[in-house]
Amino acid sequence: MKKRWTNLRVKLPMFIFISQGIFLGLFAAFVTYDDHTNALFQTNKTNPMENAVYKDYPFFTDIQVMIFLGFGCLLSFYRTYGFGGMVFNFLTATFTIQWAILVQGYFHFSHNGQIHVGVINLINAEFACAVVLISFGAVLGKTSPLQLLIMSLLEILIFGTTEWVVLKYLRINDAGGSILIHVFACYFGLGVTFVLYRPQLSNGHAKESTSYHSDLLSVMGTLLLWVFWPSFNSALTLKGDDQHRAILHTFLGLSASTLTAFALSSMLNKNGKLTMADVQNVTLAGGVTVGASVDMMISPAVAYALGMAGATACMLGYKYLSPFLARHCRIQDQCGIHNLHGLTGLISSAAGICAILWASEEVYGPSLYETFTHTAPAEKDPKLAELKQLVPGLVPGLGRTAPKQALFQAAAVGLTIGVSVIGGVFTGFVLKLPGLAAPSDELCFDDELFFDVPYDYEALLNRTTTSEDKVA
Amino acid sequence: MKKRWTNLRVKLPMFIFISQGIFLGLFAAFVTYDDHTNALFQTNKTNPMENAVYKDYPFFTDIQVMIFLGFGCLLSFYRTYGFGGMVFNFLTATFTIQWAILVQGYFHFSHNGQIHVGVINLINAEFACAVVLISFGAVLGKTSPLQLLIMSLLEILIFGTTEWVVLKYLRINDAGGSILIHVFACYFGLGVTFVLYRPQLSNGHAKESTSYHSDLLSVMGTLLLWVFWPSFNSALTLKGDDQHRAILHTFLGLSASTLTAFALSSMLNKNGKLTMADVQNVTLAGGVTVGASVDMMISPAVAYALGMAGATACMLGYKYLSPFLARHCRIQDQCGIHNLHGLTGLISSAAGICAILWASEEVYGPSLYETFTHTAPAEKDPKLAELKQLVPGLVPGLGRTAPKQALFQAAAVGLTIGVSVIGGVFTGFVLKLPGLAAPSDELCFDDELFFDVPYDYEALLNRTTTSEDKVA
Amino acid sequence: MKKRWTNLRVKLPMFIFISQGIFLGLFAAFVTYDDHTNALFQTNKTNPMENAVYKDYPFFTDIQVMIFLGFGCLLSFYRTYGFGGMVFNFLTATFTIQWAILVQGYFHFSHNGQIHVGVINLINAEFACAVVLISFGAVLGKTSPLQLLIMSLLEILIFGTTEWVVLKYLRINDAGGSILIHVFACYFGLGVTFVLYRPQLSNGHAKESTSYHSDLLSVMGTLLLWVFWPSFNSALTLKGDDQHRAILHTFLGLSASTLTAFALSSMLNKNGKLTMADVQNVTLAGGVTVGASVDMMISPAVAYALGMAGATACMLGYKYLSPFLARHCRIQDQCGIHNLHGLTGLISSAAGICAILWASEEVYGPSLYETFTHTAPAEKDPKLAELKQLVPGLVPGLGRTAPKQALFQAAAVGLTIGVSVIGGVFTGFVLKLPGLAAPSDELCFDDELFFDVPYDYEALLNRTTTSEDKVA
Repeated sequence: MKKRWTNLRVKLPMFIFISQGIFLGLFAAFVTYDDHTNALFQTNKTNPMENAVYKDYPFFTDIQVMIFLGFGCLLSFYRTYGFGGMVFNFLTATFTIQWAILVQGYFHFSHNGQIHVGVINLINAEFACAVVLISFGAVLGKTSPLQLLIMSLLEILIFGTTEWVVLKYLRINDAGGSILIHVFACYFGLGVTFVLYRPQLSNGHAKESTSYHSDLLSVMGTLLLWVFWPSFNSALTLKGDDQHRAILHTFLGLSASTLTAFALSSMLNKNGKLTMADVQNVTLAGGVTVGASVDMMISPAVAYALGMAGATACMLGYKYLSPFLARHCRIQDQCGIHNLHGLTGLISSAAGICAILWASEEVYGPSLYETFTHTAPAEKDPKLAELKQLVPGLVPGLGRTAPKQALFQAAAVGLTIGVSVIGGVFTGFVLKLPGLAAPSDELCFDDELFFDVPYDYEALLNRTTTSEDKVA
Repeated sequence: MKKRWTNLRVKLPMFIFISQGIFLGLFAAFVTYDDHTNALFQTNKTNPMENAVYKDYPFFTDIQVMIFLGFGCLLSFYRTYGFGGMVFNFLTATFTIQWAILVQGYFHFSHNGQIHVGVINLINAEFACAVVLISFGAVLGKTSPLQLLIMSLLEILIFGTTEWVVLKYLRINDAGGSILIHVFACYFGLGVTFVLYRPQLSNGHAKESTSYHSDLLSVMGTLLLWVFWPSFNSALTLKGDDQHRAILHTFLGLSASTLTAFALSSMLNKNGKLTMADVQNVTLAGGVTVGASVDMMISPAVAYALGMAGATACMLGYKYLSPFLARHCRIQDQCGIHNLHGLTGLISSAAGICAILWASEEVYGPSLYETFTHTAPAEKDPKLAELKQLVPGLVPGLGRTAPKQALFQAAAVGLTIGVSVIGGVFTGFVLKLPGLAAPSDELCFDDELFFDVPYDYEALLNRTTTSEDKVA
Repeated sequence: MKKRWTNLRVKLPMFIFISQGIFLGLFAAFVTYDDHTNALFQTNKTNPMENAVYKDYPFFTDIQVMIFLGFGCLLSFYRTYGFGGMVFNFLTATFTIQWAILVQGYFHFSHNGQIHVGVINLINAEFACAVVLISFGAVLGKTSPLQLLIMSLLEILIFGTTEWVVLKYLRINDAGGSILIHVFACYFGLGVTFVLYRPQLSNGHAKESTSYHSDLLSVMGTLLLWVFWPSFNSALTLKGDDQHRAILHTFLGLSASTLTAFALSSMLNKNGKLTMADVQNVTLAGGVTVGASVDMMISPAVAYALGMAGATACMLGYKYLSPFLARHCRIQDQCGIHNLHGLTGLISSAAGICAILWASEEVYGPSLYETFTHTAPAEKDPKLAELKQLVPGLVPGLGRTAPKQALFQAAAVGLTIGVSVIGGVFTGFVLKLPGLAAPSDELCFDDELFFDVPYDYEALLNRTTTSEDKVA
C-alpha cells in the first residue's frame, strides 16, 4: 500500500508560522484603527449610533456565512473529500482575509504610512477571499494545503494590484463584482489548473464522485450562498435606493436562474431526472449575471431575464464546454468555475455596459451622477455647482460620457482577463515546484492524505474502489 | 425491476419555461420599482439611511433562511427522500415566491396599473411561500415536482384572494399569520391529501422512515426555524414596541413549547425515550400559538402558557388524532401539519380573540388604536382629532368595538377554513389528472424516481427493503 | 443484552412540568414588560425606530444561532451520540434561558418588585446559557437529560449570584465574558466532572470516537460559532466605536488562532496530518483570549497576537495537559473545555489587566471614562463636571486608579475560580444522587439509551464494537 501521508509536518507549520510572524509584524508596524474604531475620534458631538459599524456589520455577517459555511459546504461534495472541501476552505479563507487586509489596506486604506482598519476592510477582504475560493474550485482535491496557501499569497497580490488599477484608473461600475471578482477568479483558476494538468485524470478518477450525504451537504452550501447573495451584491453599493435595488435584482436574478436550472437539468438528462450538480451550481448563476448592473435602474424584468440567461449559459457550459476544455485544452476545471463564474461574468459585463449606455437623467434623476460617479461633471465644470444644488453631497467625477464609460468597462474586462490568465499560469508554475506536497494522482480527492480519518473512512473509500468499473 | 424514472423530461421543462415566459412578460409589462427602490424618488432631501430597506432587510434575510434552509432541512427527514425534501422545497419555494410577487402585487401593491416592488414585497411573498411549503408537508414524498408546481400555482391564487378579502374587508389582527398562513395552509394541504388518498399506503410504507443522519439534518431544520421564528412573527408588525413584543412573545412561546414537547415525548413513549419526530415538530408549536396575538400586550406569562398549550395540543394530535384521521378519514398527513399548524392555529385564533376582548386603553395607552387599527375612530368621529394629538400619525379606523372586532376575527377563521378546504380539494382533483407524473405507490418516498442518485443510494434503499418486516 | 433504556418516563416529564409550573407562576407574578416593550411608554414623542430592539435584536439572532446551531452541531461529534449532542443541547439551552431570565431578572432587571423584560434580557440569558453549555462539554455523553437540567438549575443560581457580586461590587471590565463566562463555566464543569469520575472510562471507551459525518457536522458547528463570535463578544459593549473595536478584535483574534491551530495540529501529529478535533476546537481559542479586553484600544496587532497565544495554549493543553488531568487528577474533560475556555480565559484575564494598566487619556481621549467606567471621577469630584463638558452623558464612577482597577480584575478572576470550583463540586455531588438516570459506564455516549433510534443505528454501533480492539 502507498504511504498515505505527505511530508507536511515541517513545511505547513513553517510556512504558516513565518507568514503569521510577518503578518504580525506588518500589523504592528503599519495597521491602526480607522476613524470609526478609534476612541480618540469619539467627541461629544459623535452619535454612537452613526458609527459605520451599524451600516456595514449586518452585511459583513451575511458574507461571513457565505465564505465559511456556504463555500465550505458547497465544496464538500466529493464523497471522500468532505474534510478537504470544508476544512481547506476554512484554512484558505482565513489566511486570505488576513493577507488581503494588508494588501488592500496598502492600496486603498493607507494614509500617512498607516493602514486604517474597521469592519469595512473586513468586507473588502472577504470579497478578495471570494476570489481565491472560486479559483480553489478549479483545483479542488488536487492540491495540498501548502499549495493553496501559496496560491492565495500570489493571487491576492495580483488581484489587489488589478483591483487598484481598475478602480483607480479605469474607474468602472461593478457593484456585485462580476468583473473584478468572478471573471478574475475564474480565469486565474483556469490558468492555474491548465499548468497543473494531470493527464492520468483525463478519464475521470474513481474518487471523483459524490455520496448521498455529501450531495445534501453541498446543496446546503448552495442554499446558504443563495440566501445571502443579495447581501454580497449590495454590500458595497451606495446606501439607500441603490442598495435596495441591488438586493431586489439579486433576488430576482437568482430566483429566475433557479427555475431555469431545474428545467434544463431535467431536459438535458436522458431520463428527465434532476442532476444534483446542476442544483448545486447552475441555480446560482443569476447572482453573477446581475452583478455588474445590480445597482442600476435595469428594471425588475431585466434582472429576471439576466437570471434566465445566466442559468442557460452556465448549464450549456457544464454540458458541452467543460468536457471540451478538459479534452482538448488541458483544462481540468474541477467545479466548473468557468460555467458558474466565467461565462456568467462575461454576460454580466455586457449587461453592465448596456445599462450604462441606456442610463439617462430621465430615469435616474440627478442621482444619475451618484450611481455613475465618473460621468459626473469634473471639478471645474459649471454644471457641477448646478447639480450640487440638487444632490448636496455630489462628488466631482470625470465628466465621462456614457459611451466613454462603456469603453472603460470593456477595457476593464479585457485587462482583468489578461492579467488573471497570466497570473494564473505563473502561479501554476510556482505550485508545480517540487516539495509542495502535491497529492499523487492516485491520492487526489482523498482525505486520508491530509487528515487523521475516522474509523468509517475505509468503508467509504472501499465502496469507491469497488465501483471503479462503473466510473471507467 | 420497475422503470425507475418518470416522463418528466418534456413536461417539467415545458411547464417551467412557459411559466417563466409568462412571469417575464408580466414583470416587463406590469412590475416597476416602488418609492424606495426608484432612483427618481431620491431627492436632495432624502436621507439614504431612511430607506425602507434598512427596516425590512434584516427580517427578510432571517425569513429567507427559514424558507430555504429551515424548511429544506426539516423536510429531509425520510432516509431515501432527502434530495426530494430539500430540493423540491427549493424549487417550489422559488417558483412560489415569483408567482406570489405577481399575485399579491396585483391585490396589494398596484396602482396606476403597475405593481410596485421592493424588499417589502419579497417579505410578503415569502409569507405566501410558507403557506405552500406547509401544505407541501401533507403530501411530501407522494407528489412529482410538476404536481408541486401546479399546486403552488393554484394555492397562491386562492390564498392571494383570501388574503385580500380578509385584510381588505374583514380587516383582522393576525401579525404572526396564525390564521391566514397556518390555518389556511393546513386545511388546504389536508384537502389536497384527502383527494390524493392512497389506500395501499394506509398501513405505512417501507421507505417511510428515517436514518440517523436524516434525523439530525431534520433537527437542524427545526433549530433554524426555531431560531429565526421571532423574525417571522414580527416582520410585518408595527415598528417599535409592537415589534419588540412580537419578538419577545415568540421566543417565550417557542421556549415553553420546547420544554413541554420534551416532557410529553418522554411521557408518551413506552420506554420513556425521546422520539426525534417530536423534537423536530412539537417543539415549534409555540411559534404558531402566539401568532395571532403576538404584538399585543398579552403579558409574558400568557405567551409562555400559549407555548405550553400549543405543544400539548400538537403532541396529542400526533399521538391520537393523526392516526385516527389516517385510518378513518382518508387523510394521510405526511408531516402531521394538522398538529403543528392546524390545531395550534386554532388555539392561536382563540387567543387572539381573547386578547382583543381584553384590550383596553388602560393597558395600551393611546397606542391601542395603532395596534388595533380597526377599533380606531372613523374618519369623521370627533374622537379622532382628539387622539391625533396624542398619536400624531394615527390612521382613521372603522370605529369597531372590541366584541365586533372579535366577531370579524372569528369570521375570518371560518372563511379561511372554508375556502382552504374547498380550494385544497379542488387542487387535489387537478393534481389527480393523468400525466402529471405522480409516483407509483411503490416509488413514493424514493429519490431515485426524480434524481440521478449517487453510488451509495442502493445501499440506503436495500436496508430499507430488508427491514420491511419490522415496519409491517 | 442490557436494558437499553432508563426510567426517565416518569422523572423527566415530572421534573419539566414542575419546573414549567413554577416558571409560569413566577412569570405571572413577577415578570412584566420593560420600557421598550410596554405600549404604555409609547408617547407621541417616541420615535418607534429608536426602540432598543433595533440595537439589540441583530446581535440576539446571531447569538441564537451560536447557542442552538453552533453548540448543537459542535457537540454532535461522537458517532453514536449525535442525537444526544444536538438534542440535549437544545433542551438544556431552552431550560437554561428561561431560568436565567428569572434569576438574572431578579438580580439585574427588577424594580418595584417586578422583573422588566425585553430583548436585552434574552441576550443576557443567552450569555448565561453559554456558561451551562460550556460546562456541559465536560460531561457530554455521561449524563442523563435529567442530570443536565438539574446542573443547569444549580449552575445558573450560582452563576447569577457570582455575576451579580462581580458586576455590582467588583465592577470589572469583561466585555466578551472571558472571566465571567468562560473561566466560570470551565472550572464549574471541571468540578462537576471531577465528582462524576468514572474509573472504568479512564482508558477510553469504544464509543468515544467520531464518524466521517459526525466530524463534518461538528466542523459546521465550529464555523457557525466562528462566524458569529464577533456578535457574541460585542453584544454588551458600549455602542459606537467600542462595539466596532470589539467586532474587529474578535475577528482578528479568531483568524490568528485559526492559522496557528492548523500549524500546530500538523506539527504535533506524527504524520503531519490534521486532526479534526483540533480544527473543531483550537481554531476558536482566539475568540476567548481577546474577550476581556475586546473593546479596549489594544491595537489590531495585539488582538492578532492574543489569537496566536490562545491557540498555542489551547493546543498544548489538548496534547499534554488534558491527558495528565485525566490520568492523575480524576478530571475526565470530555470536550477539553479546560483548554478552550480555561487556559484561554486566564490569558484573556491577564491581557485585560495589562490593557487596563496601559490605558491613558492620550490614547482614548475623554471616552476613557466611558470604556473604563469605574475609573471615572466619583459623584462629587470636581473633575466630573469638567469631563461632562466633553462627554455629555458621562456616568459618575468610583474614581479608581488603573492599578486599583487591575486589582479588582484579579480579584474577580480569583473569586470566579473559587466559586465555580466549589459550585461545580457541590453540583457534582447532587448529580450523583441515585435515581437521576445516569447512564451506566457501558451505555455512555450511546443514543439508544435516551432515544428511539432509526434502523441504521445498530450498524453504527456494531462498527464501533468491532473496532474496540483498535481503541484499546
